[in-house]
Amino acid sequence: MRFVVIGGDAAGMSAASRAKRNAPDLDVVVLEQTQDVSYSACGMPYAIADHRRQLDELVVRRAEVFRQKQGIDLRTGHRVEAVDTRAKQIGGTTLEGRRFELAFDKLLIATGASPRRPEIPGAGLNGVMALKSLEDGRAIQALLAGKSVRRAVILGMGYIALEMSEALRTRGVAVDMIKPGPVLLPWLHPDLAAVVRQELEAHEVRLHLGRKLQRIESAGPNQLRVVSEGAELDCGLVLVATGVAPNSGLAEKAGLQLGPQRSIHVDKGLMTSCQDIYAAGDCADAVHVVTGRDVWIPLALRANRAGWAAADNATGRPVELPGVAGTAVFKVFELQVARTGLNAVEAREAGFDPVETVIQSRSRAHAHPGASTIHVQMVADRRSGKLLGVQMVGKEGVAHRINAPAVALHAGMTVADFIQCDLAYAPPFSPVWDPLLTTANQLFKAL
Amino acid sequence: MRFVVIGGDAAGMSAASRAKRNAPDLDVVVLEQTQDVSYSACGMPYAIADHRRQLDELVVRRAEVFRQKQGIDLRTGHRVEAVDTRAKQIGGTTLEGRRFELAFDKLLIATGASPRRPEIPGAGLNGVMALKSLEDGRAIQALLAGKSVRRAVILGMGYIALEMSEALRTRGVAVDMIKPGPVLLPWLHPDLAAVVRQELEAHEVRLHLGRKLQRIESAGPNQLRVVSEGAELDCGLVLVATGVAPNSGLAEKAGLQLGPQRSIHVDKGLMTSCQDIYAAGDCADAVHVVTGRDVWIPLALRANRAGWAAADNATGRPVELPGVAGTAVFKVFELQVARTGLNAVEAREAGFDPVETVIQSRSRAHAHPGASTIHVQMVADRRSGKLLGVQMVGKEGVAHRINAPAVALHAGMTVADFIQCDLAYAPPFSPVWDPLLTTANQLFKAL
Repeated sequence: MRFVVIGGDAAGMSAASRAKRNAPDLDVVVLEQTQDVSYSACGMPYAIADHRRQLDELVVRRAEVFRQKQGIDLRTGHRVEAVDTRAKQIGGTTLEGRRFELAFDKLLIATGASPRRPEIPGAGLNGVMALKSLEDGRAIQALLAGKSVRRAVILGMGYIALEMSEALRTRGVAVDMIKPGPVLLPWLHPDLAAVVRQELEAHEVRLHLGRKLQRIESAGPNQLRVVSEGAELDCGLVLVATGVAPNSGLAEKAGLQLGPQRSIHVDKGLMTSCQDIYAAGDCADAVHVVTGRDVWIPLALRANRAGWAAADNATGRPVELPGVAGTAVFKVFELQVARTGLNAVEAREAGFDPVETVIQSRSRAHAHPGASTIHVQMVADRRSGKLLGVQMVGKEGVAHRINAPAVALHAGMTVADFIQCDLAYAPPFSPVWDPLLTTANQLFKAL
Repeated sequence: MRFVVIGGDAAGMSAASRAKRNAPDLDVVVLEQTQDVSYSACGMPYAIADHRRQLDELVVRRAEVFRQKQGIDLRTGHRVEAVDTRAKQIGGTTLEGRRFELAFDKLLIATGASPRRPEIPGAGLNGVMALKSLEDGRAIQALLAGKSVRRAVILGMGYIALEMSEALRTRGVAVDMIKPGPVLLPWLHPDLAAVVRQELEAHEVRLHLGRKLQRIESAGPNQLRVVSEGAELDCGLVLVATGVAPNSGLAEKAGLQLGPQRSIHVDKGLMTSCQDIYAAGDCADAVHVVTGRDVWIPLALRANRAGWAAADNATGRPVELPGVAGTAVFKVFELQVARTGLNAVEAREAGFDPVETVIQSRSRAHAHPGASTIHVQMVADRRSGKLLGVQMVGKEGVAHRINAPAVALHAGMTVADFIQCDLAYAPPFSPVWDPLLTTANQLFKAL
């Protein structure tokens, strides 16, 4: 029995480890096209922020450990190029150009996602970089170490773009961010997005919204120029952070069914449209627990969890994952920005009749020193009274507070149910009525 | 129609305000025996910790505002001494010694709880103080301002005792804590309690466990001596923090049914055993959402929530509260200590077959700087797989993290359900697998 895993990051290595634990005699082969496996990709902006840190600190477990301690046949530098679903065989090429083929009984596709590259002239110039692989991170760290980068231009304003704006400012680099769309964080309620914008501006990050990119050109030694409608920005580094796309080409070529945004469609047991072939991680879709619909929300926890579940199913331990709530948090300078579930637009698209409340509350009790403002948005369905989603922005108490409504979404709670939850209170951490409860109380009235 | 409220703190003033909002023509009378209403009692240790702060900062809304802006007939210095449930009339005495009587249509008893005073000689000496009313807080603040207190002895080691140990150490006062029982925080898992103990000792708080108090005696001008089996402790302040008892004497005398620990028994609509008489706040019991049994857990959020609900019911808007999960958090020096639901002992007493897991995890992602240890205890029922309770101790990310399992308890989730919850992840705030999920995964295996 052979279990072949394509991709050696979060989902792939979680699956390989779990499969070997479930079935020690199983032949578990992992094929990874780079030389790096099992690293904390999300930690890269924070490692880059500190010139003393090595990107290799982010490696959670080294390849040798998987091979020697866990008995996993881990082959780095192996790029898989074809999956023959009928012959149950994969084929590809090593970094050295050697062809290889391998038969499988069970297959997991865990190919992740890749940065979308803008299709403009100059996107391939030296100094135009993305941040996906550990190798990308090392390259950015090396470039910054050379001290030639006094200004960076970040293409895009999503999670990674914002985290990198902080990292670069921490390194003393001037930062411009540019995107063609007119709105910063369009999924976030405008009142909350305005708070993020203020925070960025307070840290001298210059935002260029609604600027369509035209080209990137060389502007002298180690210097680039980003040309857009109405602005020319010179810099030593262009960071491409315009979002990611699922690496589903291999699956598509093999005839597997695709899901939202060309992710690989899987059922709740992580099986693709083809028996014995699973997909997990940033390349695969998931069911949204609020809408019941398929979504593509590439996040680390789901990748790990789906890797485990795919391995369980591949080794004869049937398990189903209920799905995702889209719970996420990021930090940008002093702010924490978090969400779970749907915003009002997504709720309407999903067929709900959304009612929304946005409030400002305090992070600590009345008169307690050091309190800051917490902004909370909450949306519910008018017909059913169900809680649909929450967003929060604040300097403290946001990152973990979002998990309470995330659990409520999994439980299918109404706003009336959520209002009655017994949440913790002590003056250093919250008002007596937690900001979430205050918001829920107001939303309940609006319903 | 007259709605009379006995007690002008969290539950009482919440109820009075809500009743007046629900029914502007209602005659709402609040009788409060002290001069202070509507203040953040939980904030007192933090105000005392800072010599520049006034206790009066903790007043959320002044009496005049209730009277003039809200039209509430708020009578301070009015001590109610009898409730005639048949004649629907109360009677009492003012601070000036004047007798008063008042008829009611609906009555709310919101008399709170009072510190248990140890029954030992010298408990009434000058310098032996409790911390319940704002007046108590002012007295302690004044005593500390006099600079005669170089050492304090705290009787008891519960929430308030521990918060006050931090406040007093912050003021430069040496602190001894003493209790007759042999265990620090007996409701907390021993591994977690050991962490709290280390934190106290690191801040030079001396703990005297298993020491039965014998007497308090004068030891010179402004000096007291606490005498126990095996120790004599001299100090300038003795703080009595040996727990609180519900102020249910009035209710008992009126023939109302009592609940656990002599609290006033109420139904889910906050009605006592007598029609038209409600009780809310620290004097009343509640249903525990995990056990379905009546419990007495006096906490601020419940008091506010119950005040609202009692007012709603008294003004003809029927509402029921599902109950409490016993969710609580406190801070002691750098530690956050939180709980929700049952511990293993309570679970067994309630008829469950408890299975327990305790783990150590990290507060931030792999390799992220500044991470500290989070200790998590989780208990579930072997037969049903239901989550029963969670405890946590750590330097960051505990206070709000406890709310996720609190919501899960309200929803009646199993551990298997909870494992699947989509919680937020970013490297500064948590590992990919949140410590709660890691614990739940291990607990699930143990089940």
